[in-house]
Amino acid sequence: MHIRLINPNTTASMTEKIGAAGLKVAAAGTVVSATNPDAGPVSIESHFDEAISAVGVLEEIRRGEQEGVDAYVIACFGDPGLLAARELTAAPVIGIAEAAFHLATLISTRFSVVTTLGRTCIIAEHLLQSYGFAHHCRKVRAAEIPVLDLEDDGACALGRIVDECRRARDEDGVGSIVLGCGGMADLTDEIREAVGLPIIEGVTAAVKLAESLVSLRLGTSKHGDLAFPRPKPFTGRFAYLGN
Amino acid sequence: MHIRLINPNTTASMTEKIGAAGLKVAAAGTVVSATNPDAGPVSIESHFDEAISAVGVLEEIRRGEQEGVDAYVIACFGDPGLLAARELTAAPVIGIAEAAFHLATLISTRFSVVTTLGRTCIIAEHLLQSYGFAHHCRKVRAAEIPVLDLEDDGACALGRIVDECRRARDEDGVGSIVLGCGGMADLTDEIREAVGLPIIEGVTAAVKLAESLVSLRLGTSKHGDLAFPRPKPFTGRFAYLGN
Amino acid sequence: MHIRLINPNTTASMTEKIGAAGLKVAAAGTVVSATNPDAGPVSIESHFDEAISAVGVLEEIRRGEQEGVDAYVIACFGDPGLLAARELTAAPVIGIAEAAFHLATLISTRFSVVTTLGRTCIIAEHLLQSYGFAHHCRKVRAAEIPVLDLEDDGACALGRIVDECRRARDEDGVGSIVLGCGGMADLTDEIREAVGLPIIEGVTAAVKLAESLVSLRLGTSKHGDLAFPRPKPFTGRFAYLGN
Amino acid sequence: MHIRLINPNTTASMTEKIGAAGLKVAAAGTVVSATNPDAGPVSIESHFDEAISAVGVLEEIRRGEQEGVDAYVIACFGDPGLLAARELTAAPVIGIAEAAFHLATLISTRFSVVTTLGRTCIIAEHLLQSYGFAHHCRKVRAAEIPVLDLEDDGACALGRIVDECRRARDEDGVGSIVLGCGGMADLTDEIREAVGLPIIEGVTAAVKLAESLVSLRLGTSKHGDLAFPRPKPFTGRFAYLGN
Amino acid sequence: MHIRLINPNTTASMTEKIGAAGLKVAAAGTVVSATNPDAGPVSIESHFDEAISAVGVLEEIRRGEQEGVDAYVIACFGDPGLLAARELTAAPVIGIAEAAFHLATLISTRFSVVTTLGRTCIIAEHLLQSYGFAHHCRKVRAAEIPVLDLEDDGACALGRIVDECRRARDEDGVGSIVLGCGGMADLTDEIREAVGLPIIEGVTAAVKLAESLVSLRLGTSKHGDLAFPRPKPFTGRFAYLGN
Amino acid sequence: MHIRLINPNTTASMTEKIGAAGLKVAAAGTVVSATNPDAGPVSIESHFDEAISAVGVLEEIRRGEQEGVDAYVIACFGDPGLLAARELTAAPVIGIAEAAFHLATLISTRFSVVTTLGRTCIIAEHLLQSYGFAHHCRKVRAAEIPVLDLEDDGACALGRIVDECRRARDEDGVGSIVLGCGGMADLTDEIREAVGLPIIEGVTAAVKLAESLVSLRLGTSKHGDLAFPRPKPFTGRFAYLGN
Repeated sequence: MHIRLINPNTTASMTEKIGAAGLKVAAAGTVVSATNPDAGPVSIESHFDEAISAVGVLEEIRRGEQEGVDAYVIACFGDPGLLAARELTAAPVIGIAEAAFHLATLISTRFSVVTTLGRTCIIAEHLLQSYGFAHHCRKVRAAEIPVLDLEDDGACALGRIVDECRRARDEDGVGSIVLGCGGMADLTDEIREAVGLPIIEGVTAAVKLAESLVSLRLGTSKHGDLAFPRPKPFTGRFAYLGN
Repeated sequence: MHIRLINPNTTASMTEKIGAAGLKVAAAGTVVSATNPDAGPVSIESHFDEAISAVGVLEEIRRGEQEGVDAYVIACFGDPGLLAARELTAAPVIGIAEAAFHLATLISTRFSVVTTLGRTCIIAEHLLQSYGFAHHCRKVRAAEIPVLDLEDDGACALGRIVDECRRARDEDGVGSIVLGCGGMADLTDEIREAVGLPIIEGVTAAVKLAESLVSLRLGTSKHGDLAFPRPKPFTGRFAYLGN
Repeated sequence: MHIRLINPNTTASMTEKIGAAGLKVAAAGTVVSATNPDAGPVSIESHFDEAISAVGVLEEIRRGEQEGVDAYVIACFGDPGLLAARELTAAPVIGIAEAAFHLATLISTRFSVVTTLGRTCIIAEHLLQSYGFAHHCRKVRAAEIPVLDLEDDGACALGRIVDECRRARDEDGVGSIVLGCGGMADLTDEIREAVGLPIIEGVTAAVKLAESLVSLRLGTSKHGDLAFPRPKPFTGRFAYLGN
Repeated sequence: MHIRLINPNTTASMTEKIGAAGLKVAAAGTVVSATNPDAGPVSIESHFDEAISAVGVLEEIRRGEQEGVDAYVIACFGDPGLLAARELTAAPVIGIAEAAFHLATLISTRFSVVTTLGRTCIIAEHLLQSYGFAHHCRKVRAAEIPVLDLEDDGACALGRIVDECRRARDEDGVGSIVLGCGGMADLTDEIREAVGLPIIEGVTAAVKLAESLVSLRLGTSKHGDLAFPRPKPFTGRFAYLGN
Repeated sequence: MHIRLINPNTTASMTEKIGAAGLKVAAAGTVVSATNPDAGPVSIESHFDEAISAVGVLEEIRRGEQEGVDAYVIACFGDPGLLAARELTAAPVIGIAEAAFHLATLISTRFSVVTTLGRTCIIAEHLLQSYGFAHHCRKVRAAEIPVLDLEDDGACALGRIVDECRRARDEDGVGSIVLGCGGMADLTDEIREAVGLPIIEGVTAAVKLAESLVSLRLGTSKHGDLAFPRPKPFTGRFAYLGN
Repeated sequence: MHIRLINPNTTASMTEKIGAAGLKVAAAGTVVSATNPDAGPVSIESHFDEAISAVGVLEEIRRGEQEGVDAYVIACFGDPGLLAARELTAAPVIGIAEAAFHLATLISTRFSVVTTLGRTCIIAEHLLQSYGFAHHCRKVRAAEIPVLDLEDDGACALGRIVDECRRARDEDGVGSIVLGCGGMADLTDEIREAVGLPIIEGVTAAVKLAESLVSLRLGTSKHGDLAFPRPKPFTGRFAYLGN
C-alpha cells in the first residue's frame, strides 16, 4: 500500500518532517512518500495561502494517480482542496484536520484545538461546523506562532504550544487536545508528556485512517457529487488541466 | 463607484452576459465592469473546477486593487475563493450565492434553489449551512443542464429551468426561488413571468449589495481573520504572488 | 422610489434622527420619509413594548400602502411586527436588526452586537437564531443605557457604547460590530472612529437593502405564508382593521 | 387556584369551547375561567392577526393581575404575545403550542403537527425552532380548514383533520400527533379514537402545565429578561398602558 | 392515580427523601410510592453507574406494571434507562432531568444547571442536546459534591450549592436555575430563598408532569419506536426478562 | 495487538460471524477475539434490549482488562454502553455505528443508513445527532428484517437489504451506504457488488479504527468525564461491580 502525504506548502523541511511522522506510524507493508508542490506559498496562514496551495495539492493528486498511489493525505490543518482532490481519484483522500477531529471524538467527549496563529482559528471553526464536530470542540486556541517558526525555532515554539495546551486542559473541560498544524507533527510526544492529556496530531491520524480505508477497500465514492469532474477545456496556463 | 464583476470561468460570452445583467440594475453613478481570468475552466461544475478558478478570481482581485475598484462580485454560484478574496482587499467582496440567499430571506420565509447539475447541489448545501440559511431553504434542485448549455441553447435550457422552478413552487412550500447559476442571469425575467414567484438572481443581487456596502462606507474588515495576508514568499510559477 | 422609515416608538426626536440617518445614505432618486405611530410606547425596551408597538407599525404600513410607498423599514432593533408587516404589502419590508446582521456577515466572519439594556439581549439572540446568524455572532453585549438616554445625553451614552464596543473588539475575536438600537444611528461615525472596526448600523443598512430590492423589482412574496391576510372581521376598537 | 384561559381571538363560541375543554381536565380545586379580548380578529390565521391579537392578550393579563389570577393560558396555537405576557406577571403563562410540544416529547420520540391552514404552518415551524423541538417534529401538516369552519361545521372539519392525522400516522414515522389549533379542543377524543395514536391538544396540555407550575410555586422569573417592563409613558390611545 | 418514583440508586435514605419530596407536591388524589432497585450502585456519578442502574430501573417498571402503577418517575438526573423504560409500559415515564428542563423553559428564557460532580456535566449536556434545550441552557455547573455527601452532610453541601447557584445568577445571565441531582430535592426551598431566583427541582417537576399526563389520559405511545419490545429469549441470569 | 470484539447479544453464531469479519480485515500482527455476554437478549432490537445488553458489554470490558486487551469494539449498531465502557478502560473503545459513520463521511459527502427494523431507526437518528453526523446522513432506512433472520435466512435477508440499498442509491442523493447491523457483516461484499456504491460496514470499520488508535498510542482519555468511575459499593447481585 502506497500512501502519499501531500504537504500543501513548498517548504521542503516541513515536507520531510511530515513524511517522517507518517512513516513512524505506518504499518509494516505501507509505503509512505511525502511531496510538496513545486509552486505556492512557503507556509499556509490565510484563506489566500490556502486557495493558492490547493492548485499544487490537486496537481499532486494527478501525479499520484499516474504513479498508482493508493491513498492521499493533505497535510495542512485547513484541509485545502479536500473535496476537489476527492473528485480526482477513486482512492481515499484524508485531510489532517478532519482526521484529528474524528479520532479526538473517539477517545474523549470534548476536545480543544491548539493552532498557530489566531487568524487561522476561523478556518478550524468552519471545518468543525462543516464536518459536524462543532459541539465536540470546546475552543479553538492559538499559540500565536507563525508556521515557519516551527521550523526555525522548535524549542521556543514548543514552550508556547505546551502553555496553550495546558490552558486548554485546565480551563476548557476537555479530555484531549488536537494540534492544529502539520508542522507540529514532530512535537507530539513532547507535548503529550508535558500536558498529560491525549494529544491528537493530524498527520499521523490521517495516515492511519488512510490505511484503514485502503484495507477495507473503501475509496472515494464516484457516485454523485464526488464523481470525476466532467471533461472540459481549461484555458491559458491551466490548459493542461482540461481535456 | 466602480464595481468589478468577476466571472470565475473563462467563457467570454458568459462574462458579457453577467456584465450586462449587472449593468441593467446598477445605480446611475455606478461603473460596472466584467472580467474573467485568462486561465482556468470554461465552466464551473465541480469542486475541482472551483478550486482552479479561485486562482483566477484572486488575480482579478489583485488587478482590481491596482485599478482602484470599489467593490467586487464573484459571479459563480459556488462563491469560489470568497474568503481568500476578502483577505486581499478592504473593499467589499460579494458572492452571488450568498447575495441571492440573503435577499431571498428578506422577501420570503422559505425558498428553494434551482441550479444546473445535480452534482453541484452539494456545493449550495454547504454554502447554505456555512452562511446560516440551511433552515430557510427547503430544497436544492437541479435542472440537470450543463452550464455551457445555458450559452448554446438558451431556449431549451429555459424550459427545463422553468419546469424545475414550477415543481419547487408547487411541491416545496416556498415563497421564492433562487437561481443557482450566474449563467441564468439573462433568463430571470422570463422565468419570473413563467413561474409567478419572486425569482432571485445572484449577479444582480450581488451588485446591489456591493453598491449598498460602498454607499455605507463598509468594507471587508481588516481586523482579525480577514486581514491582509501576512507577507511571505511564494515559490515557482506562483512566485509573483509573494512578497 | 419612496422608502418609509417607521420608528415603532412614539418619540419624535428619534424619528427625526432616524429619518436623517436614512436620508444621508439614500441614493439620489430616493425619497426617504420617517414616521412614527401616534400611539404606543415612547421607547422599546421589552417584549411588552414591542408587542404594543407592532400595532402602530402595522397601521403605518397600511397608511403607506395608500400613499404608494415602495419599501418600508422597521426602525427598531427587535424588528417588531416584521412578518405581519410583510403580509400587508407586496413591497419589501426590512427590519433594522436583520439588515445589520446581513451586512455584518458580508464584511466579517464573526461579529458582536452592542445594544442598550441587558434585558433586551434576549431579543437579539432570538432574532439571530431565527434569521440563521447565531453562529456568526460571538456575543450580544449591553451598554446598559436606557433608549431615551440616547436622546437626552448623547455624549455620555456615546462613551459607554464606545467602551462596550472596544471590549467586543478586544475580547470577542470579531471583525465588526453591530449597533443594537435605532437610536444610535447618529453616533455611528464617532463610534467607528473610536473603535477602529467596521460598525454596522441598522437604519442605514436597511435603507440600502430596501433600495436594492426595489431596484431589483423584488418585493415580499405573496405566494404562501406571507400572502395578504385572509379578509375577516375585526371587532371592537380594532374593527377598522377588518373587512 | 385560578387559571385564566385567554382566547386571543374574539369569537365567543370558541372561548366557550376552550373554557369547557380546560374545565374538563382541571383538578378538583382549580377554577378555570375563559375570556377573550373585546377587540381584535375573529380568528387568527396570519402573522397580522397574531400581532393585533397580542394587544388583547396583554390586556387580559393586566386584567387578570387585578383579579388575582394564578396562571394564564394563551389559547391560540401561535402563542401570540407569550414573552410579553410573561413580563407582565410573576405568575406562569403558558402557550398552547408550547404546551402541546412539551407533552408530545414526553410520550413519543417524534411527532407531527396537524394545523388548520397551510399558511400558518410557518408559525408552528418558527415556534418549534425557537422552543428547541425542531428535531422532534417530523412534519407540520395543514388540513386546509379555516379556523372558524371549526365552529360552523365541526363534522366536516373533523373528517379532514382525521384524514390528515392518518396521513401523519402512516407516512411520517411518528408516535403522536399534536393538534395545531385551539378550536380543535372539543374534537380530541374523536380524533384519538379515529387515528389510534396519542393526540396532544394544547389547551388541555397548557391547563395541566399551569396547574403544575402553580403547585410547585414556580412562576415567571422576574430576574433578567422577563422582569416587569420598565415604567414609561405610552402615548395616544395606548396611554393607559404607561405609567 | 398511583405514581411510582424510582430512585435508580440503592441508597434507601435517598429514596425516602425523593418520596417525601414527591408526596409534598402531589395532588390530593395521588398516591406516591418510592422504590429503589435491590441491586446496583449506591449513587450514580458516571456513565457506568448509570448503565448498571438502568437494569434496576427497568425491573422496577416491570414490577410497577404488575401493580397497576399509572405513571413512573426516574429520579436520577441522567434519566437512566428512560427510553427503554418507556418501551415497557403504556403509562407515562418521566425523567427528572427532562422534567426540570421543560419547566425551566416555561418560566425563563435561559437557565443554568447546578449539578454535583464536574464529571457528570457531560451527561446533562448530552441530555440538553438530545431533548432540544441546548440553546436554552447557558451553562452546566458543578458544585463538586459527591452525591452521597448530600445525605451525610446536607448543611455543608447546601452552602456549596448555594454558592454555585449564586455564581450562575450573577455570571450567566439566566432567569432560573435547575438543580442537577435528585438528592437535592429536600434543599430546594432553602436554595430558592438564598439565591432569589426560581429554582427548578426535577423530582417535584416530574411528579407534576406525570400527574398531568395521566389526567389527560396521555401515555407513552405504543405506535412505532416506543412500542413494547418484540418478545424474544434472554439468556443466563437475564432469562427472566425474556419470553 | 489484541482487539476484542464484543457482540452485545448472546447469539453465538452472530459472535462468530462478527469475529470472522473482524479477522478478515485485521492487520498482520493483530489478534482478534470475539466474545459475547453469557446473559442477555439473543438480539438487540429495542432500547430495552440495548439497556440490558449494556451490562454484558461492561462485564466483557472488565474481563478484557484482566486479559490485557488493547482495544475493544462494541459490535451492535446502537453502540450500547459505549461511554460507560470507555470509563472502564484506558484502551480505545469503538462502537460499530460510530465507526461506520466516521468512515462514510471520509469517502462521500452524504450517506444513508440501511438498518433492520423500522423501530430501531430512532436509535441511529439519536446517535447521528449526538456524534455530529445528522447533516451528513440523508435518511435512515429499514429493510424490516428481524436481526436473527440474518442468521437463519441470509439469502432472503440479502435480497431485502439490497433492495433497500438500491432505493437509497436512487432516491436519496447519497454517495455511500452504511449497513445498520453487525449481523450484516458477512453480506458486505455481495451488497456492494449488487448496489454499486461504497458500502460501509461497522464491524470492519471499527476494527481498523481500533488498530489505528492503538498504533498511535491513543486511548480513552482518563482526564475528566471519561475517567475511571469513582470507587463505590454496589449492592445485591451487582455487588461484584463495586469496590
